[in-house]
Amino acid sequence: MTAPNRATLWGETLAEELLAAGVTGVCLAPGSRSTPLTTAFAARDDVEVFSHLDERSAAFFALGRSRRLGEPTALVCTSGTAAANFHPAVIEANQSRVPLIVLTADRPSELQDSGANQTIDQEKLYGDAVRWYRTLPEPKPESRALRSLRVSACRAVERAAGTPPGPVHLNVPFAKPLEPTEVEDDIPETLDADAPLGSTGRDGPFVRLSQGRPTLDSTTLDRLAADLSGIDRGLLVAGPANAPTPARESLAALAEATGWPVLADPLSGHRFGHEPHSHAQICGGYDSYLDAAGDWPDPEVVLRFGASPTSKVMRQYLRDHAAQQFVVDPAGGWREAEFTATDLITADPTWLAERLATRLDSPRADGWLARFRTAEQEHWNHVTDAVDTEHFEGAVLSTVARGAPDPATIMVSNSMPVRDLDRFGEPRGADLTVLGNRGASGIDGITSTALGAGSATDDPLVLVLGDLAFYHDMNGLLAVQRCGVDATIVLLNNDGGGIFHMLPIEEFDPPFTEHFKTPHGIDFEPVGDLYGLEYAVLDDLEGFETAYRESLGSAGTQILEVRFDAEQSHRVRERLHDQVCGAVE
Amino acid sequence: MTAPNRATLWGETLAEELLAAGVTGVCLAPGSRSTPLTTAFAARDDVEVFSHLDERSAAFFALGRSRRLGEPTALVCTSGTAAANFHPAVIEANQSRVPLIVLTADRPSELQDSGANQTIDQEKLYGDAVRWYRTLPEPKPESRALRSLRVSACRAVERAAGTPPGPVHLNVPFAKPLEPTEVEDDIPETLDADAPLGSTGRDGPFVRLSQGRPTLDSTTLDRLAADLSGIDRGLLVAGPANAPTPARESLAALAEATGWPVLADPLSGHRFGHEPHSHAQICGGYDSYLDAAGDWPDPEVVLRFGASPTSKVMRQYLRDHAAQQFVVDPAGGWREAEFTATDLITADPTWLAERLATRLDSPRADGWLARFRTAEQEHWNHVTDAVDTEHFEGAVLSTVARGAPDPATIMVSNSMPVRDLDRFGEPRGADLTVLGNRGASGIDGITSTALGAGSATDDPLVLVLGDLAFYHDMNGLLAVQRCGVDATIVLLNNDGGGIFHMLPIEEFDPPFTEHFKTPHGIDFEPVGDLYGLEYAVLDDLEGFETAYRESLGSAGTQILEVRFDAEQSHRVRERLHDQVCGAVE
Repeated sequence: MTAPNRATLWGETLAEELLAAGVTGVCLAPGSRSTPLTTAFAARDDVEVFSHLDERSAAFFALGRSRRLGEPTALVCTSGTAAANFHPAVIEANQSRVPLIVLTADRPSELQDSGANQTIDQEKLYGDAVRWYRTLPEPKPESRALRSLRVSACRAVERAAGTPPGPVHLNVPFAKPLEPTEVEDDIPETLDADAPLGSTGRDGPFVRLSQGRPTLDSTTLDRLAADLSGIDRGLLVAGPANAPTPARESLAALAEATGWPVLADPLSGHRFGHEPHSHAQICGGYDSYLDAAGDWPDPEVVLRFGASPTSKVMRQYLRDHAAQQFVVDPAGGWREAEFTATDLITADPTWLAERLATRLDSPRADGWLARFRTAEQEHWNHVTDAVDTEHFEGAVLSTVARGAPDPATIMVSNSMPVRDLDRFGEPRGADLTVLGNRGASGIDGITSTALGAGSATDDPLVLVLGDLAFYHDMNGLLAVQRCGVDATIVLLNNDGGGIFHMLPIEEFDPPFTEHFKTPHGIDFEPVGDLYGLEYAVLDDLEGFETAYRESLGSAGTQILEVRFDAEQSHRVRERLHDQVCGAVE
Repeated sequence: MTAPNRATLWGETLAEELLAAGVTGVCLAPGSRSTPLTTAFAARDDVEVFSHLDERSAAFFALGRSRRLGEPTALVCTSGTAAANFHPAVIEANQSRVPLIVLTADRPSELQDSGANQTIDQEKLYGDAVRWYRTLPEPKPESRALRSLRVSACRAVERAAGTPPGPVHLNVPFAKPLEPTEVEDDIPETLDADAPLGSTGRDGPFVRLSQGRPTLDSTTLDRLAADLSGIDRGLLVAGPANAPTPARESLAALAEATGWPVLADPLSGHRFGHEPHSHAQICGGYDSYLDAAGDWPDPEVVLRFGASPTSKVMRQYLRDHAAQQFVVDPAGGWREAEFTATDLITADPTWLAERLATRLDSPRADGWLARFRTAEQEHWNHVTDAVDTEHFEGAVLSTVARGAPDPATIMVSNSMPVRDLDRFGEPRGADLTVLGNRGASGIDGITSTALGAGSATDDPLVLVLGDLAFYHDMNGLLAVQRCGVDATIVLLNNDGGGIFHMLPIEEFDPPFTEHFKTPHGIDFEPVGDLYGLEYAVLDDLEGFETAYRESLGSAGTQILEVRFDAEQSHRVRERLHDQVCGAVE
């Protein structure tokens, strides 16, 4: 490697090593201090480079790409508040276990706390939200320093992709010159910058990683198998997927072995998909009918995978009715906020599900699964009727899931869309990768996350989000053009925070309308012109279905806006819930 | 005070005490966990309430209001990443010393790190960027706890408004119910919630604040006066204003006493304004001619107030030519990043300037001030010519400053606009309050900061910003409608990062155009429709002048876009700089 000065050499080495260690994409936000990194990444042809103007959106885009791929995306910004704009996405990445390598350029040490421009305290900027943090040394054209840099790059990838995966923060100070201008004698002639790689050069990273996953010893495994065997009434719960998550085959095998219902969160990776899951066991309507299941016999045992389920009804049902709850978390995250789990299993979910599948012996009390089957049928029949007769967001989510091509990637925003998909998205034998930001469940960065996910796949991309989420990350739409990602964007516009109708504050107006519901009255249609996207306002579900189908069949990005009255929609949901509960009691 | 439950009581008490301690405005972002705070603030008629949908913009709006008023604005958000969206503005507030009271609602302690929804680690979320941080206890209906709450509110205001002023973070956990629903026996009948205020009630805050400012003892003051007396060639430098900043009268008296030139940053509060400053001493063209002043006799002494000057030319001139540099900073901030200051004076600037004005005895070597007068004349003549003949951003900044009504509040973005105002904004006897976010000098949150400033004054509001800053905080425009602030918004569109033409990276393309200049090609005109604002694209300076005058004379908000070629503009600046330097050598 030859470089005109030490900053250039440092940036090139760091970029080279990150790519050698497995990074395949980087999001760059413009700035001066990050010049050596930007220049290094931009010069490579073995990395996908995404250029962003708003760092907040950039970080969520990187998060979305990493989430979809399951591998770390790098993220580069200049010094100053640019780095703080990454903070929301770093927190989401931490909580939903998405690998990210955050590279914040910094000014050299002597300028810290001196009143120098664009110089802020970037040390531990993200607190405990990162798996690993280092302020790197300033560029040094020395063999040992360059080896340390390569090791830091490998460590960053190792920690980002570890158990659990998550964000890593490297703070990278640079002194001028930042550009690839020749600086005489800056790099000693005796320095062989490639020397750290050994005389034979290398093919692969400086340090090869062999990362283990937690497994149980056979005694513990046998004890667990014994605990879970001979159970009449068991439940498998697949919460929102976080890496590492149980492979479809392994959970399907376990479901097959036990014959238990699988309550599959829409974000779990198990509600939608082809075989091997038997669709007789996959349940998706629980948020509607579990309220009525209190009169059924209680489950004897629940085995939970993934993060805390989206459905509050399900969480409360488990709290009140499950005598024994086994929570599987390879990272020992204790993610069970009702505090009724009785067993924590720190083991790789795929490994565990495979092992248990071959060891469990379940009596298959048919009545148990049958109850769920009947309830599911009742629920989906009612949903089908409601979709035909009612104008509410749930009908759109139902249509989105039923009408999505196979395969497709679908991103849903927090607040109501993910809840509506949970309740109205019927299990289906199609390869739908459904994503949501359920780590911190913010309404920020949704569009960027979706487009980042879209950049990582050839699947058609569908994004469903509410108007507040759409407004919050409008800037994210620039990635359609700049990063060449197409999407079908379904905007559910109920003019404010529809979810607040679900809360007791609805009864107190003021301040309900002005400060909770917060209607904004924005007509979003000019957003189409602003970003060069097709924009359609659909009046009814029929119109939406047609437009949705057309959008999926055509190139480019279409925004399909459907308007709702949040209060009326909430009443439809309540009515439907009561009907289903009444029918299954 | 009566309240239906402990959360309500807690929220009402906190709001009441903050207002009693002097807070007059609050920015609210919608959310559920913050319900007790939102409800409490919304119910008061003695506070201005601003409702925002994007927390990043909300925080910058609060910053702008606080900056313009010089008093703390409160800021409320729900739990989760909402709080992280405040981070950029908190950092700016820290570095530019703007008082802010950040109230982040949090979930109760038992839900931390449990996988519960919208629960993140909010402890010390902003690290060392705040003057004071506390996670408050959960609401307790007890006298001592309520007294502690009132004391915390008073402390928050005291620290936010202290020396230096800055942001304070109160993390406020609440358990359900969050709404003002009656909870039987939640508040003991024996509790007199107003008891902490004493049997007579109160008029004013629970703890009255008497906040001192640093002053020097007379021996030290006399020594300083002796050091600064008898100086032929002195300079007064007024850097960007941070509270507490020297009052106009005090610095004018000192200028009068010394006869020295006053190099007045556009953000200092001393470049523009009516008497008492003598405009024979106020200099604003230094960024153009100080490069040529190396051949002049060197200044013997420089006395600096405020933050580090915007002008790099000035900073380098001081570094290379000032034998003795006195830096006045009441907070002992050591803000001098060339590290050539010889004296740090930790004293209130107004107090000091007043005292020195009566003690200094300067010989008034006329040649010294005359050199600056001549250079100023040369510079402003060249600027006037250039405004008539050249199409570049500097001409707009010149026109904005010359044509602004008296009084007016003007906000300029970082990157080029503040630099162009520095160089092309001619000192003027008009009450122009010029603001910029020069703490961290980010391009984020500019529009929101401006509108927040506008909310605090009846002055006409002018905002001048580049296209990247405009894009970054487009969401901030919603405050025009929601918060009822009007502005004249001047958008200097050179399609990307024009400032990079000033840097050596310009020579390296690729990656210059794609990753530094980052042209986006956005036609911003639909933004007018999106936010219901008038939008005009002006082709030339004449058209701009007319539109600017019309906008200032009319109600509503107008966006005036003027398009430039950044590279060509940079050449104009270089040529002008060379001409002026040639003329004054």
